[in-house]
Amino acid sequence: MNACLITIGDEILIGQIVNTNASYLSQKLFSLGISVEKIISVGDYESDIIRELKNAEKNFDIVLVTGGLGPTHDDITKRCIVKFFKTKLVFDKNVYRSVESRFMSRQIKVPPKNIFQAFIPKIAKPLSNAHGTAPGLLICRNKTVFCFMPGVSYEMKYITEKHLLPFLRKNFKTKNVLLQQTLHTFGIPESLLAEKLGDINNIIGRKKYGNVKLAFLPSSTGVRMRINVDVANEKHGVNLLKETVLKIKFKAGKFIYSSNEEELTKVVGSLLKKKNKTIAVAESCTGGLISSMITDVSGSSAYFSEGVIAYSNVAKKKLLGVKENTLKKFGAVSEQTAEQMADGVRRVSKSDIGVSTTGIAGPTGATKLKPVGLVWIGYSDTKVTFAKKFIFTKDRLRNKEIASRWALEIVRKKLLAIE
Amino acid sequence: MNACLITIGDEILIGQIVNTNASYLSQKLFSLGISVEKIISVGDYESDIIRELKNAEKNFDIVLVTGGLGPTHDDITKRCIVKFFKTKLVFDKNVYRSVESRFMSRQIKVPPKNIFQAFIPKIAKPLSNAHGTAPGLLICRNKTVFCFMPGVSYEMKYITEKHLLPFLRKNFKTKNVLLQQTLHTFGIPESLLAEKLGDINNIIGRKKYGNVKLAFLPSSTGVRMRINVDVANEKHGVNLLKETVLKIKFKAGKFIYSSNEEELTKVVGSLLKKKNKTIAVAESCTGGLISSMITDVSGSSAYFSEGVIAYSNVAKKKLLGVKENTLKKFGAVSEQTAEQMADGVRRVSKSDIGVSTTGIAGPTGATKLKPVGLVWIGYSDTKVTFAKKFIFTKDRLRNKEIASRWALEIVRKKLLAIE
Repeated sequence: MNACLITIGDEILIGQIVNTNASYLSQKLFSLGISVEKIISVGDYESDIIRELKNAEKNFDIVLVTGGLGPTHDDITKRCIVKFFKTKLVFDKNVYRSVESRFMSRQIKVPPKNIFQAFIPKIAKPLSNAHGTAPGLLICRNKTVFCFMPGVSYEMKYITEKHLLPFLRKNFKTKNVLLQQTLHTFGIPESLLAEKLGDINNIIGRKKYGNVKLAFLPSSTGVRMRINVDVANEKHGVNLLKETVLKIKFKAGKFIYSSNEEELTKVVGSLLKKKNKTIAVAESCTGGLISSMITDVSGSSAYFSEGVIAYSNVAKKKLLGVKENTLKKFGAVSEQTAEQMADGVRRVSKSDIGVSTTGIAGPTGATKLKPVGLVWIGYSDTKVTFAKKFIFTKDRLRNKEIASRWALEIVRKKLLAIE
Repeated sequence: MNACLITIGDEILIGQIVNTNASYLSQKLFSLGISVEKIISVGDYESDIIRELKNAEKNFDIVLVTGGLGPTHDDITKRCIVKFFKTKLVFDKNVYRSVESRFMSRQIKVPPKNIFQAFIPKIAKPLSNAHGTAPGLLICRNKTVFCFMPGVSYEMKYITEKHLLPFLRKNFKTKNVLLQQTLHTFGIPESLLAEKLGDINNIIGRKKYGNVKLAFLPSSTGVRMRINVDVANEKHGVNLLKETVLKIKFKAGKFIYSSNEEELTKVVGSLLKKKNKTIAVAESCTGGLISSMITDVSGSSAYFSEGVIAYSNVAKKKLLGVKENTLKKFGAVSEQTAEQMADGVRRVSKSDIGVSTTGIAGPTGATKLKPVGLVWIGYSDTKVTFAKKFIFTKDRLRNKEIASRWALEIVRKKLLAIE
């Protein structure tokens, strides 16, 4: 069972938007055991779109197409469908009613452009869209299933969850069992990790496991290791995956913070909850990002009470009790300031743990002794207060992100008593 | 001059990463007047990769390939190059030296896997990579230029900026001038905006401008309008673009916050700077995101002094002076609390403007009268304090983002005295 994704829109080809729809759909198909073998992006041109539909029909069982179904003039997907499938547009009462009700709820008359949304290719089954006016369109021909969806992410996601996935689950059963697990590491470069582990035969210890695949996905703050198992028997697959994970953990366990796709913030949150600890954050160079990451997790109010973004020296003194003398003697970007910020926010908020950041995010603000990328991360609990020095990159946003993740990693290590 | 991007990696096809490399490269090529006509993602399979290289060589002038150049076993791009170009790998002293120096600076011996990075296809020109061990590889054959780069974003970006773009600038001159401008709107649905404007001929007023293209890119907090001009003469193009923008602004100007790709945060920052105002932020349901967005902008310390994330009622009272009585009578998610938070943070920080958010981000925390998605956004300056009620979505992260952007939009409107 193979699939192809076609995303339509000049905005992708000129780089104005990032193709998150493709990664979302790939994930969903993968979870059904359907492997996406190709993703194609083409522009809003009839000939390109029809050429790709033709190619896809020849080579794939499932073809998902996003984009170009909106009410404006650059949306030409429906026109292409009519040509390619040799069909025509017909008025669909139900689709019209749903378009109408969307506007009625906002007390607006249906704009003429949107009436057109109710005309759908005769060959297609419309899939309702609760978040927009363009329905999804399901078409089956020559053993290939086509599903056309709008490019707006939350509309596409609604149609996928509500209609497409149930349809695929019902109609496509895969022979083999595809299993996948990802281990997230932090603070070790890809090549060292690879050296530590060796290749997959080395890890599993036997040549016969050619159906286990190990891939490394490096990023600026860690490497994800993706393990894929592709076997005929589910039980065998589950055991094989378990065995592989165990052996990897044995060799590189202390670098692994997550083995179930959980974000670092979620991992730290769960640890805090489990250990009944609360945390407070005092940020300078990360500017609120640590707090925002922590509060991305639903239920974080159980362990996160407050955060302070003390960008100015005045704020550092007033909100966190950093000493005037410390700022004068060592500067705002210093071990001592980071420590006092972490300690200060912990005390002020009456939390169990305080973390802090102070640094030169860049691109400006550097001095001879304090380059762009220099960050001190402070940690404080009832037993210990310390700060660690890092030199990250020249890029402001990357520095904010890496520093935030390191701050969380320091908390994770302390909570687990990892050296 | 046309181009094709090929991104290699199972991680893209199973949706584990979003293909940001493609959008980055598309943008860069577009800015040189080179139009990307197709983006393809395939997995780590030799036959797929070679098939796409073959197709691309036939149809495109420029072929950029990312991914699969790392030191681990799933990196097979070099093997494919050797086969496709019928060449062989040779040891490159300079590449080896640069690999060596990367590890020496960390006082680590070059791991054996990384020695392999110094073997490059004989037909290729290596492009130095300051951020990793895999050099870029430039190959010209049959009038097609191939450039292979690592998939790690910052390595790919380095090679692009340092080597690829200068090379393309020197060797490829386009006939036509491609110009582009994007207008960002906020708070108006796509269809209403399209109704307001009509199509491009309607906007420009003359049929002859078939070389002006207008595209709508909707998102959850606004619509971007992209105008493309493709003409032979630069001066004519510039005027045409200017005229189009003016006419659009005349019809929908008050919804447009940016006409030069500037982010809302940057627009608000520039306004604050220009008007010599400072801002402070008190966040509950947005959890630090507003502050983080503000501090994404370099130089924000000039107008942003501090932010407070008051997740708990205790923090709201203690840090912002929200009255016990207000919390009791109206609750934490209320007009009154939002107002007191905005007013409080403004006073405490001695800033000119205070903004605040309090709401039910979800998915939990809703009550009968206060559904998930309910958010109050507060605003306070020396003359006026108010709060506005919104009902956003059921999704926590989207609610955080939309609320943060609305808070900034409210500040923008106040600064520009837009009703």
